[in-house]
Amino acid sequence: MRKEILFGAAYYPEYLPCDRIKKDLVMMKEAGMNVVRIAESTWSTLEPEEGRYNFSYVDRVLEEAQKLRMYVIIGTPTYAIPSWLVKKDPSVMVETKEGRTWYGHRQKMDLVNPTFRACAEAMIRKLFCHTAEHKAVIGFQLDNETKHYGSYSSFVQQMFLEYLKEKFKTTKTLNQTFGLAYWSNSIENWEDFPDMRGCINGGLAGEFEAFKRSLAADYLKWQADILAEYKREDQFVTHNFDFEWKKFGADIAQDGYSYGVQPDINHYEASKAVTLAGTDIYHPTQDALTGAEIAFGGDCIRSLKADNYLVLECQAQAFKYWTPYPGQLRLHAYSHLASGASGLLYWNWHSIHNGYETYWKGLLSHDMEPNPVYEEAKQFGQEWKKKGAERLCLSKQNEIALVIDNRSLTALQWFPIDKKISYNDVVRYLYDSLYELNLECDVVDIHALEPSRYKMILTPALYSISEADIKRLEQFVLEGGVLFSTFKSFAANEQLSVYPDRLPHLLNSVFGMYYQQYTQPDKVSLLGEPVTGLAELLCVGDAQVLGSYQHKYWKAYAGITKNRAGKGMGYYLGCLAGKEVLKKVLKEAALDAGITLSGITWPVIVRSGINQAGDKLQYWLNYSSQPKEFSCPCKKGEELLTENVYARGEKIRLEEWGVAVLKEMEE
Amino acid sequence: MRKEILFGAAYYPEYLPCDRIKKDLVMMKEAGMNVVRIAESTWSTLEPEEGRYNFSYVDRVLEEAQKLRMYVIIGTPTYAIPSWLVKKDPSVMVETKEGRTWYGHRQKMDLVNPTFRACAEAMIRKLFCHTAEHKAVIGFQLDNETKHYGSYSSFVQQMFLEYLKEKFKTTKTLNQTFGLAYWSNSIENWEDFPDMRGCINGGLAGEFEAFKRSLAADYLKWQADILAEYKREDQFVTHNFDFEWKKFGADIAQDGYSYGVQPDINHYEASKAVTLAGTDIYHPTQDALTGAEIAFGGDCIRSLKADNYLVLECQAQAFKYWTPYPGQLRLHAYSHLASGASGLLYWNWHSIHNGYETYWKGLLSHDMEPNPVYEEAKQFGQEWKKKGAERLCLSKQNEIALVIDNRSLTALQWFPIDKKISYNDVVRYLYDSLYELNLECDVVDIHALEPSRYKMILTPALYSISEADIKRLEQFVLEGGVLFSTFKSFAANEQLSVYPDRLPHLLNSVFGMYYQQYTQPDKVSLLGEPVTGLAELLCVGDAQVLGSYQHKYWKAYAGITKNRAGKGMGYYLGCLAGKEVLKKVLKEAALDAGITLSGITWPVIVRSGINQAGDKLQYWLNYSSQPKEFSCPCKKGEELLTENVYARGEKIRLEEWGVAVLKEMEE
Amino acid sequence: MRKEILFGAAYYPEYLPCDRIKKDLVMMKEAGMNVVRIAESTWSTLEPEEGRYNFSYVDRVLEEAQKLRMYVIIGTPTYAIPSWLVKKDPSVMVETKEGRTWYGHRQKMDLVNPTFRACAEAMIRKLFCHTAEHKAVIGFQLDNETKHYGSYSSFVQQMFLEYLKEKFKTTKTLNQTFGLAYWSNSIENWEDFPDMRGCINGGLAGEFEAFKRSLAADYLKWQADILAEYKREDQFVTHNFDFEWKKFGADIAQDGYSYGVQPDINHYEASKAVTLAGTDIYHPTQDALTGAEIAFGGDCIRSLKADNYLVLECQAQAFKYWTPYPGQLRLHAYSHLASGASGLLYWNWHSIHNGYETYWKGLLSHDMEPNPVYEEAKQFGQEWKKKGAERLCLSKQNEIALVIDNRSLTALQWFPIDKKISYNDVVRYLYDSLYELNLECDVVDIHALEPSRYKMILTPALYSISEADIKRLEQFVLEGGVLFSTFKSFAANEQLSVYPDRLPHLLNSVFGMYYQQYTQPDKVSLLGEPVTGLAELLCVGDAQVLGSYQHKYWKAYAGITKNRAGKGMGYYLGCLAGKEVLKKVLKEAALDAGITLSGITWPVIVRSGINQAGDKLQYWLNYSSQPKEFSCPCKKGEELLTENVYARGEKIRLEEWGVAVLKEMEE
Repeated sequence: MRKEILFGAAYYPEYLPCDRIKKDLVMMKEAGMNVVRIAESTWSTLEPEEGRYNFSYVDRVLEEAQKLRMYVIIGTPTYAIPSWLVKKDPSVMVETKEGRTWYGHRQKMDLVNPTFRACAEAMIRKLFCHTAEHKAVIGFQLDNETKHYGSYSSFVQQMFLEYLKEKFKTTKTLNQTFGLAYWSNSIENWEDFPDMRGCINGGLAGEFEAFKRSLAADYLKWQADILAEYKREDQFVTHNFDFEWKKFGADIAQDGYSYGVQPDINHYEASKAVTLAGTDIYHPTQDALTGAEIAFGGDCIRSLKADNYLVLECQAQAFKYWTPYPGQLRLHAYSHLASGASGLLYWNWHSIHNGYETYWKGLLSHDMEPNPVYEEAKQFGQEWKKKGAERLCLSKQNEIALVIDNRSLTALQWFPIDKKISYNDVVRYLYDSLYELNLECDVVDIHALEPSRYKMILTPALYSISEADIKRLEQFVLEGGVLFSTFKSFAANEQLSVYPDRLPHLLNSVFGMYYQQYTQPDKVSLLGEPVTGLAELLCVGDAQVLGSYQHKYWKAYAGITKNRAGKGMGYYLGCLAGKEVLKKVLKEAALDAGITLSGITWPVIVRSGINQAGDKLQYWLNYSSQPKEFSCPCKKGEELLTENVYARGEKIRLEEWGVAVLKEMEE
Repeated sequence: MRKEILFGAAYYPEYLPCDRIKKDLVMMKEAGMNVVRIAESTWSTLEPEEGRYNFSYVDRVLEEAQKLRMYVIIGTPTYAIPSWLVKKDPSVMVETKEGRTWYGHRQKMDLVNPTFRACAEAMIRKLFCHTAEHKAVIGFQLDNETKHYGSYSSFVQQMFLEYLKEKFKTTKTLNQTFGLAYWSNSIENWEDFPDMRGCINGGLAGEFEAFKRSLAADYLKWQADILAEYKREDQFVTHNFDFEWKKFGADIAQDGYSYGVQPDINHYEASKAVTLAGTDIYHPTQDALTGAEIAFGGDCIRSLKADNYLVLECQAQAFKYWTPYPGQLRLHAYSHLASGASGLLYWNWHSIHNGYETYWKGLLSHDMEPNPVYEEAKQFGQEWKKKGAERLCLSKQNEIALVIDNRSLTALQWFPIDKKISYNDVVRYLYDSLYELNLECDVVDIHALEPSRYKMILTPALYSISEADIKRLEQFVLEGGVLFSTFKSFAANEQLSVYPDRLPHLLNSVFGMYYQQYTQPDKVSLLGEPVTGLAELLCVGDAQVLGSYQHKYWKAYAGITKNRAGKGMGYYLGCLAGKEVLKKVLKEAALDAGITLSGITWPVIVRSGINQAGDKLQYWLNYSSQPKEFSCPCKKGEELLTENVYARGEKIRLEEWGVAVLKEMEE
Repeated sequence: MRKEILFGAAYYPEYLPCDRIKKDLVMMKEAGMNVVRIAESTWSTLEPEEGRYNFSYVDRVLEEAQKLRMYVIIGTPTYAIPSWLVKKDPSVMVETKEGRTWYGHRQKMDLVNPTFRACAEAMIRKLFCHTAEHKAVIGFQLDNETKHYGSYSSFVQQMFLEYLKEKFKTTKTLNQTFGLAYWSNSIENWEDFPDMRGCINGGLAGEFEAFKRSLAADYLKWQADILAEYKREDQFVTHNFDFEWKKFGADIAQDGYSYGVQPDINHYEASKAVTLAGTDIYHPTQDALTGAEIAFGGDCIRSLKADNYLVLECQAQAFKYWTPYPGQLRLHAYSHLASGASGLLYWNWHSIHNGYETYWKGLLSHDMEPNPVYEEAKQFGQEWKKKGAERLCLSKQNEIALVIDNRSLTALQWFPIDKKISYNDVVRYLYDSLYELNLECDVVDIHALEPSRYKMILTPALYSISEADIKRLEQFVLEGGVLFSTFKSFAANEQLSVYPDRLPHLLNSVFGMYYQQYTQPDKVSLLGEPVTGLAELLCVGDAQVLGSYQHKYWKAYAGITKNRAGKGMGYYLGCLAGKEVLKKVLKEAALDAGITLSGITWPVIVRSGINQAGDKLQYWLNYSSQPKEFSCPCKKGEELLTENVYARGEKIRLEEWGVAVLKEMEE
């Protein structure tokens, strides 16, 4: 493992109004930075005409970087295609439900288009060949934020049809699997299979989404395989995975943040193509800074490889909403380390003077001069340089897993819990509650889950699940685990056919209850807190009722239950209860699972792990504008940033938006 | 007339994950059910390839039904077309303003497409031929919820052009009729007639809508004519008429309810194709259950044939918003009878495990087991079986007609009363006020109206009306009737040309006033209640002013007037007054018309009629969660469900969401 | 200059259900009217088939007008094309981002389409030839409310490409100018230039918008050049310029009002084609009547030629929202004169009985009879006739210029200040504040600005500006002027490339400050009033801080500053402060500029100028429902409408919604 924390920025000299490569790298170096990510998105600069290449910007950065002993990550530029490629073959532009997309925006091509693939291959072979041997190059990023772009091209649809034939063999099986007889959608002959654009079958549409997610993962694998022919052993392969982006209003670039599980590629599936997971995480700041997105994103990405990861993009000044208060940029940075990041790169070094994301500001403003944000980065950049990855980067072994699933996400778009409640809302409802209780967890795809590694498993709205996976969870409980499930879990199979018996399917005895009905909760409460969105009317068998609905007609039904099954325990939350109710029950469940609760809660966040030196570290993060203090929880501890040493119980001060990194010391 | 109330459900064994036909029919039978509606929407099952038919599901249901002495209604499956038909001829898919629709959804074909017609004819001939002789088959449903689907196909547009040529003879007449000179839209030669998709002439667009409604009616007539070659004398022909669907937010299946007059087919025109009117009515329930939609829908459909009708679809569990409280399913059912229904079928028997309407739940949940809703249906199913249609089904002779009109509906989409107020809002504003006062009415298309049958006629926003019809209404008043009209009545002719003299056109003397101006009412009141949406500034001649506007500048004008004309009376409401104001005036108008008011008001609803045995019945319905009681209004009455007998004035208890059916007894 | 005020209406006998030309003109004459505008929009009547003309309506109006000694303005009908033209060549319909537009609506053609141009030329030549000699014809209106209609036709795009080649010579310069390397959008060869529909480069898109505005201006120039071959010397050439239209909700005709700077044509550029500026201004009335739109529109249009102008369209009854209170129609009319109008024509004479704008009512309602609004027009029509233009029409010489700019408008659509704040919101924020303080100003395009004519110049959000123009403003200050600029001024060049140094670009020393950062103001105040939308964090050098942000973290930064530079003064407002704060500072700035403040504020508005007789006039306008009074401000004054004479200090009464016209008298 690398000794330095990678600290730097995305850097695009091609975009600049003047030549500043040398000056910029020196400014970075002065701020303690040691790495730049270049080349992604610059295809038209690298290959201005088909077959004619120009690597001068790349070469100049490499040259200056090497002089300054800085590192370079080379990104393949394929996610932003040149216009000559579209002139050569217009069908490279993705065809969505709205028709063929116009050229201009990035990430709008059809990933399986043969012309695109041929030209992309030529491009990246040249780039790999040109850069792989260079000493400054420590790794490669494949494409960027790859997704399936909603393609309905004839290429994609033909491949999907072949996939269905292969998987289901006969149209009869296809019809039965998806219930296509409904509204006369069944087919007798494969050639009658209709264009997917009109599909009204949630199950078939879900299968198509899953198929397209696989195409996107295959595409990264394809780039990785080509890269394998060129790269050195010591160079890593990464990708910049992003999250469901939540807009908060305007249809403009500078709006939205990283919210939840990514719908358009499966991170777990796609991560097989890389050796080092990477991500971008953007989040509200100023008074809205909670740290939840940094923690959620980090827990997702770290869990992909159960290893450290790179934050390949994060915000410096970003949008006007997010201009950080003094101290917040530093808090962001330490928060990423606290989740297990081993590197952090800003998007981007400087603000861009033209184009589309002009007001998605970088570390430098458009004036390219030092400013308060740059000065703050310089401060902790020096701290990082001094301490290094060896002392600050964490590895973790969490006792809790929160299970996520793309198919359930898609399913709940077709069959919504509520107009206002998405799958990711439920994921975040559970995740954020754990986070605020300082219960750390891995965030794990259902297909990657190894139950035996955990004491407690949570399934937020795990709507779609195979019987085999249900049985694995049942086994987990019988062997002593605590399963904590919410409404809309275990309802349908992977093709979104609702299980035709009492729900939760196959788990009536694990949970000690079942339900046949559910309702919109209108003036319904649970444990004194209002219920919103959905209330399943739980008919209790052996379970212990933790709360029944407070309502004239629904009081006969439970809203939350727990049940001993085998050596373990099944908790079931049948409704969107108040968050305080949820946290109360989560604490009870954690205790049942034998997990220790610190009693510390947000806005003070503690995140723990082992550094490379083998020390037990705790990151203490204060997400508030008021100073806080806490008692040293271990016999003797060193606060690494101040190098102060504390005895158990001694008060340690956290400044507003402040950080402490406590190392448990041997006596 | 049938002795049994038809009670059952739509049933789709084709959609089920397992074979349950026998089991399902037995469960129905046990619940007192006696009928299933099958086959509609299952074309791809019935004819998996063009010309190859498979009636096995139909045959099995018929066989089991006959064994159990249950009835079957055969629906033609034409509203959901198979994908092979679209492969054969893509132009069968409807072409709307948004372009050609993708295959998948039902009710998206071009009804006049020759390929569609040819294949549909082949299909339904086979189906009729195959089933008409079967003893269990008591009737046929033609298509389902037929509408014009917004077609702008070249077929439809060419037919419209021919229709215009036929109707207006010369382009000069066309230009003058619709005022096409406006914005240079007039044409000299018929071949210059432009594509209707760009039409900005409200009158011409209204004519096109009316023409398309006729095409939809013709299509049902065409199916009826084919059926006539096959069906037995004793078999009825029905259609499932639906209403304007009001969404309350989300663009998903499980959202919305039956709200008002249907814009996309004219019920009166289309009902000529059937022998027994049928409908579907969906409505809010739980705390939002008022009974108004059941009453409104019933009054509309009963008035089509002045006869009993079938509720071919209504909700069992439906969406999560509507999971009924205990007692409500029974109240729904009796409410339909109280409006004159002679049968009631749920949509649908079981919830569907796949597809699109998975969470539009049936009587059974996805687990296919008995549940509280099924148990409740069983209770009143047995009551119905015991009493029969002879005693429970009503015929009515109402004294009030509420007049509806599709052209006015279309017109007020082009020339809205207000951003937030639609034609149907005005219809419901008037209808609901009558309903809450327990003033029963027929809801009658202006073209079906026989004024002499009524004492009082109401015209909510009857914007578009021919001079002949205005004169019929004038005559009605002169001969002693009470006409109660609202703002925006009698403003334009059938081609939406505003009458170029003082409004209300030709009725200045009937109403004793006219108006030249109107305004958005900003801080305007009438009789102490705020006015919204629109205030016509009524200049009073002979009329009695029931209320003038309360406003600094508009106080010179009346907002509501009444006027004696001939032997009758004209009431005119010039604004959207508070509902309490409206009800107050409605009561006065009813008294003027010689109509008795019971004084009972919502949430207790009384609906009356004569049963087949000739008894006078009153349905008493309690739309509240509090028990109510009422005094027996007749000398001696039997409550049919309890068989208790009461003397005049004796208290009769209505449970929360409860029902009483009081038969006036001979002494 | 004409001695009469032109007073009349748009008149469309072609649209009427019956022949009323003679009757209508007599009714107009009786109301003191002397002019009608005809023929615009009636192409299909004038040329029902290609090459066959019919001028009978025009001839009859001309004949009757001449008899009554009334005037006629002939409008070219080209903005509403006949359907035969679209049948002849479908490509005349504009192709926008949404595709080819359907025929029907007006103002939806591709202005540069050769077929359109050829047919339009034939049409207008015939019309000019037919009417130019007629004595009643006093002028011509070219087209109507011309804009570029969002065309992306191949004609327009090809012309744009030629323009770019001409302007930038090489693709390298093009790439550098717009920063096209971003997202791989740079091109090596001109033939790779992509379709503009997908453009994501704000600068290039802005250039395209500017180019399209020029095409629209060229089109008017082209009509003017043709007209020049026919018209008499004494006939004027005008155009009906309109403003950005602000919808307040519904997507229907009768909704919205004239709000701000027109995005789709540049008034200054286009006005070169006319000899007399014309405009339409629609505005809220009833309790929402402020006069601001009448003043703003008037100040814009008067500034085009620094001369009187025609109000070619304004509202009589218009929509239901705007039915005027008694007295308001008269107040509207005098308000137009107070801004410098020399004529006023209603849109339109009568309400239209069919079509699209049926409820955009004229002076007459659909009944075509006298009504309260007509009677009111008659009253002041007689006043005008009596006084004439000589005494009532104003010329002005304002000391303040408010600078507007289309490129900044477009830029801030791409790079919004805030989701809810448009460029025009800032323009109106500044303009309305001046207006409410009774500080009259010219509203001047940055390219038309002659700084030396003014004492004070205001730049609301002048985002895009050339260095040459910045230097002109700097010079203005150095020579003694007061420059008052807001946030987002002087940020980018004309191709929207952000200036790569400290902002405001080149004006750090004029304003005595700079800024590097800005933020969304969350709970931030300035001088006690909340700040919304944006707060630039001003780092103060020599400037005087008029207010710093009230906020825990931003208090270190100023929000508003003033600075002496040379002989003048630079004011900079870094945020959207409360309007009261803005007005306070504007008053200070006006005093610094040596401008006298009357102390009178809205709802009493005073607007001044010199009439043709050389008298100093003041229009006093009362925009409230309460009577007001004011003191005669001059030694001796005559109120022209009452002919009362007042001495200084004597009280003069303004009725509710009332008007006084005070002439300063020689002693």
